[in-house]
Amino acid sequence: MRSSQGGMSVAVVGAGGAVGRKVVEILEERAFPVSRLRLMATSRTAGQRVLFGGRGYTIENASAEAFEGVDLAFFATPTEVSLALAPEAVRRGAVVVDKSSAYRADSSVPLVVPEVNAEALYGHRGIVASPNCSTIQMVMVLKPLNDLSPLRRVVVSTYQSVSGTGREAVEELRQQSSAVLDGRPAQPVVYPRPIAFNLLPHIDEFTANGYTKEEMKMVSETRKILGREDLAVSATTVRVPVEVGHSEAVWVETEEPIEPEAAREALRAMPGVVVLDDPARSVYPTPLDAAGRDEVFVGRIRKDLSSKTGLVLWVVCDNLRKGAALNAVQIAEAMARCGLLGEGEGR
Amino acid sequence: MRSSQGGMSVAVVGAGGAVGRKVVEILEERAFPVSRLRLMATSRTAGQRVLFGGRGYTIENASAEAFEGVDLAFFATPTEVSLALAPEAVRRGAVVVDKSSAYRADSSVPLVVPEVNAEALYGHRGIVASPNCSTIQMVMVLKPLNDLSPLRRVVVSTYQSVSGTGREAVEELRQQSSAVLDGRPAQPVVYPRPIAFNLLPHIDEFTANGYTKEEMKMVSETRKILGREDLAVSATTVRVPVEVGHSEAVWVETEEPIEPEAAREALRAMPGVVVLDDPARSVYPTPLDAAGRDEVFVGRIRKDLSSKTGLVLWVVCDNLRKGAALNAVQIAEAMARCGLLGEGEGR
Repeated sequence: MRSSQGGMSVAVVGAGGAVGRKVVEILEERAFPVSRLRLMATSRTAGQRVLFGGRGYTIENASAEAFEGVDLAFFATPTEVSLALAPEAVRRGAVVVDKSSAYRADSSVPLVVPEVNAEALYGHRGIVASPNCSTIQMVMVLKPLNDLSPLRRVVVSTYQSVSGTGREAVEELRQQSSAVLDGRPAQPVVYPRPIAFNLLPHIDEFTANGYTKEEMKMVSETRKILGREDLAVSATTVRVPVEVGHSEAVWVETEEPIEPEAAREALRAMPGVVVLDDPARSVYPTPLDAAGRDEVFVGRIRKDLSSKTGLVLWVVCDNLRKGAALNAVQIAEAMARCGLLGEGEGR
Repeated sequence: MRSSQGGMSVAVVGAGGAVGRKVVEILEERAFPVSRLRLMATSRTAGQRVLFGGRGYTIENASAEAFEGVDLAFFATPTEVSLALAPEAVRRGAVVVDKSSAYRADSSVPLVVPEVNAEALYGHRGIVASPNCSTIQMVMVLKPLNDLSPLRRVVVSTYQSVSGTGREAVEELRQQSSAVLDGRPAQPVVYPRPIAFNLLPHIDEFTANGYTKEEMKMVSETRKILGREDLAVSATTVRVPVEVGHSEAVWVETEEPIEPEAAREALRAMPGVVVLDDPARSVYPTPLDAAGRDEVFVGRIRKDLSSKTGLVLWVVCDNLRKGAALNAVQIAEAMARCGLLGEGEGR
C-alpha cells in the first residue's frame, strides 16, 4: 500500500463503457476508500470526462506504465485488453479485479462472488476474476440450495437485457423500437438480427458443440464457483428487448428433495438475495424491479412437477450492478476486509 | 350437411378478437369451402364489419338460436362463452372447433393438432378442442422425437408474445413502449405490471401449486395429445415484449439418446415443421421470422450437457396462426378429409 490518507490508488480500465461507469458510480456510492483515481480506456472513450466525488476526471489512454503506483485496478474491458494489460498492472504491484472472461478458467485465478466463495480470494496471485453476469445471479441462489442438499443438476434458460452487450446495444434497442413504432424497419448493427420486439437465442459466439460461449460460461463458471466440478449444467441463453436486468428460469435437482418453503427460508437468509414470492398478489421479480438495485431477486419458487428432487425458480438481477460492477467492487471490499489489499497485504 | 353449392355454413364466434379475425382470414386464404358465413360475438365487437371473399360481414350478437343451420362453428371465445354456447351449437347440428380451454381436459372431447393426433378426431361427439398456443408448437416438435424414442421428461420455458393475450395487449405494448421512449411512465392496464422493456413470469392465473394455469395446460395438454399420461413435464411461462410469435427453450429426455442430426432429420420430415439450425451463420428461429408464417420453426438443436439422453431445442411459432386460428381451421380440414364433417358425417 503506497497511498496516503487511508485510501488506495484505484484505477478503472474501460471507464467509458457501461460497466466501467457503473464501477466508478458504485465506488462513490459505497464510499470505497479511494485516495487517487485513474480512469483509463483503450477505446474511443479516452478523453471523455467522468464525475467522481464531485470532481471531473479525464479518461486517459491505458498503457502498462499508467499502472505505476496503482494499488487496485478494475478491468471492465474486452478479454484481449485484460490479457494484455492486467499482468502489467500486477507486475507494478496492483491487485486486479477483472470483469472479462480472460482469466476465469485459469485455475490459478480465483473466480469470486463474495457472498458465495470469498474464501477463494486467499489463493490470489494478483488477479481475481469476476464471473459472467448470468452466472453471478444464478450462483447467488444455487449456493444456499447446495448447502441444504447437494445439487445434482441445473437447467437454466435466460432472458438477458441488451445492456449486457453495452451502451451501443441499449441505443440500438431504443432506435429500433422507435422505428418499428413509426412503421419503419429496424436496422440491426450491434446484433445480427433485429432485437426490438424480437428475441435472439444467441449471446456471444457459437462453439463446436452447438452451445454459445455464454452458455458454456454458465456451465464452467458455476462449477468453479461452487467447487462442484461434477455438477451437471445445461443452459439456453437468450437476448430479450429489455434495457437492464437479466432474468432466469432455473430448474434445480438436488440429492434430497427441498420443500419450497425451506428453499425460501434459506434464500431469505442469503446475504444479497431478496425473495419476492407471493404470486397470488402478482409479487414476483421482473427486470424493472431489479434495475438499479443491488440485490438478486428470486420468486416463483415451486416444486418441479417433472422430478421428485426438483425445484423451479425465477431469478432476476441488475446485470450492470451485481451482475458486473457491484460484484467487482464487492470483491475489492472483501479483499480489503481479509487483509488481502492495502496495508495488510504481504505480496 | 345442409348447405348447398358444395360448401358449408360456417360460423365464427368471437370474430372481432385477434384469433377470430385470423380464423376468417385463414378460411379465405385456404379457400375453405364456405357457402355461408356468420360472424358472431358476445362482446363490444358486435356490429363491427369484417371482410371475407371481397364482401363485408357484420358481426352479430351470438345466441343459441343463431346456430340454426350452421354446419361448423369456430369458437375463438373466452371459456365461459364456449361453455354456454358450444353445446347449443352442437344441439343444432353444428360441429364445434373450440379454441378456448373449456373442453380441453374433457376426456370425451378430442384435443387435436392434426399433424400429431388427427386419429383422435374419430371419437368426437360434436366438439373438438384446439390446444393452447404454447402447447401446439411444442407437441409439433415432441411428436417426431417421441416416435424416435419415447419421451421421459420435458422441461420448457417460454417467451410468449403479447398478441396471445389479445389485441388490447398489443396496443398496450405499443403505447407503453412509446411512453418509455419519450421518458414517460408505462401505464399498465391489461397486465398487472408494465410489459414494455420488461418481462412478466405470469401468464393466466396462479394455481395452488405455484404454477400458473398456462403452465399446467402445457403439462396436461401435452400428455393428452401425445397419449402419454405418464410423461413428466414442467413449464415456466413468461410474457415478453414481442408482438407476435411465441418462443420456447425445450429440454427433452428420451428412453434412448437421440443424436442432434437424427433429431434434425426427423423434424425435417415432420409436416408443418421447418428446421432453421445453422447457428454459425446466425440461422435460428426468432419471433420476427415466424410472424405471419404457418410453420413451427425449430433450431439450436443440441445435446443436453446435463443428461445422457437429453436434447435441447429452440421452438418458435406464430401464436395467432398455427398456435391458434390455423390449427382450428386445420382441424376442420382434417375432419372434412376424414368424412367427419359435411356429407360424409354419420351423426
